[in-house]
Amino acid sequence: MPLMKSWIETANSADTDFPLNNLPYGSFQAEDGAPHCGVAIGDMILDVTALEAEGLLLVAEDEDELFAFGDWTEFMAMGPAVWASFREKLITLLSDGNGDAQELVPYLVPQAGTQMLMPFTVAEYTDFYAGKNHAMNVGTIMRGAENALPPNWLSIPIGYNGRASSVVVSGTDVRRPWGQLKGPNDDLPRFEPCKRFDLELEMGAIVGTASEGPVTVQEADDMIFGYVLLNDWSARDIQGWEYQPLGPFQAKATATSISPWIVTKPALEAFRTSTPERERELLPYLHEPKPMLYDIALEVGLAPEGKDETIIARTNYSVMYYSSAQQLAHHTTAGCPMNTGDLLGSGTISGPTKDSRGALLELSWAGQEPVALDTGDTRTFLEDGDRLTLRGAAQGDGYRIGFGDCTGTVLPALADPYAR
Amino acid sequence: MPLMKSWIETANSADTDFPLNNLPYGSFQAEDGAPHCGVAIGDMILDVTALEAEGLLLVAEDEDELFAFGDWTEFMAMGPAVWASFREKLITLLSDGNGDAQELVPYLVPQAGTQMLMPFTVAEYTDFYAGKNHAMNVGTIMRGAENALPPNWLSIPIGYNGRASSVVVSGTDVRRPWGQLKGPNDDLPRFEPCKRFDLELEMGAIVGTASEGPVTVQEADDMIFGYVLLNDWSARDIQGWEYQPLGPFQAKATATSISPWIVTKPALEAFRTSTPERERELLPYLHEPKPMLYDIALEVGLAPEGKDETIIARTNYSVMYYSSAQQLAHHTTAGCPMNTGDLLGSGTISGPTKDSRGALLELSWAGQEPVALDTGDTRTFLEDGDRLTLRGAAQGDGYRIGFGDCTGTVLPALADPYAR
Repeated sequence: MPLMKSWIETANSADTDFPLNNLPYGSFQAEDGAPHCGVAIGDMILDVTALEAEGLLLVAEDEDELFAFGDWTEFMAMGPAVWASFREKLITLLSDGNGDAQELVPYLVPQAGTQMLMPFTVAEYTDFYAGKNHAMNVGTIMRGAENALPPNWLSIPIGYNGRASSVVVSGTDVRRPWGQLKGPNDDLPRFEPCKRFDLELEMGAIVGTASEGPVTVQEADDMIFGYVLLNDWSARDIQGWEYQPLGPFQAKATATSISPWIVTKPALEAFRTSTPERERELLPYLHEPKPMLYDIALEVGLAPEGKDETIIARTNYSVMYYSSAQQLAHHTTAGCPMNTGDLLGSGTISGPTKDSRGALLELSWAGQEPVALDTGDTRTFLEDGDRLTLRGAAQGDGYRIGFGDCTGTVLPALADPYAR
Repeated sequence: MPLMKSWIETANSADTDFPLNNLPYGSFQAEDGAPHCGVAIGDMILDVTALEAEGLLLVAEDEDELFAFGDWTEFMAMGPAVWASFREKLITLLSDGNGDAQELVPYLVPQAGTQMLMPFTVAEYTDFYAGKNHAMNVGTIMRGAENALPPNWLSIPIGYNGRASSVVVSGTDVRRPWGQLKGPNDDLPRFEPCKRFDLELEMGAIVGTASEGPVTVQEADDMIFGYVLLNDWSARDIQGWEYQPLGPFQAKATATSISPWIVTKPALEAFRTSTPERERELLPYLHEPKPMLYDIALEVGLAPEGKDETIIARTNYSVMYYSSAQQLAHHTTAGCPMNTGDLLGSGTISGPTKDSRGALLELSWAGQEPVALDTGDTRTFLEDGDRLTLRGAAQGDGYRIGFGDCTGTVLPALADPYAR
């Protein structure tokens, strides 16, 4: 598919994340101070909440308050047919040929300087462990190369439940946590600020329509509303002491940042790609009827406080071993009800090379090999004031489908977490 | 404190779970078909939703729709001062000396035959592993006696995030799940119905007021609205194959049942008891300023389909190593926001003796020692048609504070989970 032309000129550039082919959904703080739903187009946001209020863009004739609260959740619950017809309406409004384009100009807000907000209400958050390079690297660091991959890894898209209350939108500062830590040579743990604070580069899949019993991989794909970039902030020293036998808990409870824009499946359709060949045949319930991963180039930028950014990792979502649809299908096997707004983290996306690893734990090999930044600084783990930025885009012919930056800055730990 | 007398005679019996001293909160299907909020008193339910609608029982003058949807969540969010004044109003209404008692009679519904509903909206669900006998038993079964207790167990109230969407109210049937299973002598896993379906006898603490940063144990106790009985249904064969390295996932995703009645802290105040002496001193952030456990006698009944019930375990909540307040305080250490409606499972409550173990995994020692029922049947794990009932009560002087039965019946696995 070529670039679709819009009457908004900045949307026709090869350098924007947001051509007419994309039309991702987000929420922003409008001039009236309230959260509004919006669609990114070029360097502007089309104010969907205001258009709905004026009757200029309705999902259905009897739906005139769907976007009134600046949250996409209700729309997500309405399902694929509604998603498709709404996208058609947006394309008609924003296409080059729209004779009534002038009428829409008052509903365009510049992205620059606009505060983005959480675009949907996270119901529950699940994080997976589906990148093989990541699992090999982390397993080697923690258990040695011979025991790197757990026995179930090639059969199960391993996941654990995370904490929905900790999910924040890009731009939210992230405070270094306190926690129980124990060094390998210590007898007893201490309660201290985390010293090994890390990122995890992931994609997040957002569940649109709910399910009750087990669903197939195709049904799971149909349930997915769209994707975001996701940074699963991780306290490695807390994790190392707490994670056995029941998995990560407070190590992953500080924050999980998502990109401000939800890129929907139709925008990514041309970029579908298959999961890799299997070393062990998957059980039938995990078979994919069609390609369910996407070719999305990803990068991580790290900027020390007041300094320029260095790209510390470049990789691609297509390296994952399990797709989000497979993960969602597995999630339902025991009869677990899934709901609108459930968020599924892909797991850390690490490529096969050293400069394509999606976490500092891997990039610095648990601190043994500091990462050199262009500024002359080095990093083993994150330092206070570091600003992290995830970026991701699928590259089309003369256009790209992007997510917008997913950023977060590390604030210093509280001096006394119990001071009131 | 002695029995407080009510004009509802059945509330004055030593044999009711629901004397005036208790006043637990639940939701039920009213005659009009809608969910109503109610308070248990003797063998009746006082219809709080109907009383509010008539202006006869208001939380505050400007609050006349707080209970309109038959859900206690909004009330829970209002905090301890409101909880206390509302309880005072209920005590006044239901006390022996109320001259206007006759006016309330139309608002009493018999408990018998009334369908109970979820009393609140579960925000997120966390399950802990805080019973030392349970941890020792399970650890011995899985890793041998010498490695039974994980190194962190004496320092951390270990927990993992569960799945809020799977929480159901007592009386809801529970379908045996399918899942990935692998026998110890199998090379590869199969996708099959669970063969080792189990219960876990727990208490659940319900978070009333929200928090942002770390909270102390006292603040955590203040945040807790009340307690329920909780059965954390567990698929042991799914768990054994999936749980390393990231903890239980689908093994615990089928269902978690809670008792219909939330017993509030004031009703339990007289039964506070301390956590045990520490083998390893706790870090200061986990110190308890006062007793935070409760003396609540617990039992588990198992009735094969169409047969009488056998009590398979008797124990007491007071045997736990960590209190819910300690668990909640630990939950917030990394800055994890807690919300109204968060549910915290205590972990399986097993006493020191064989007949006081809160799971069949322990009672049958992983299937090696079948449990004999009074009917002549035996059980290693749950069979289809088995009806489980948890009961719990604190014993006062001439009265008891109970939770009502927490029941669930095991339905057979679906023949084909993907049949539509």
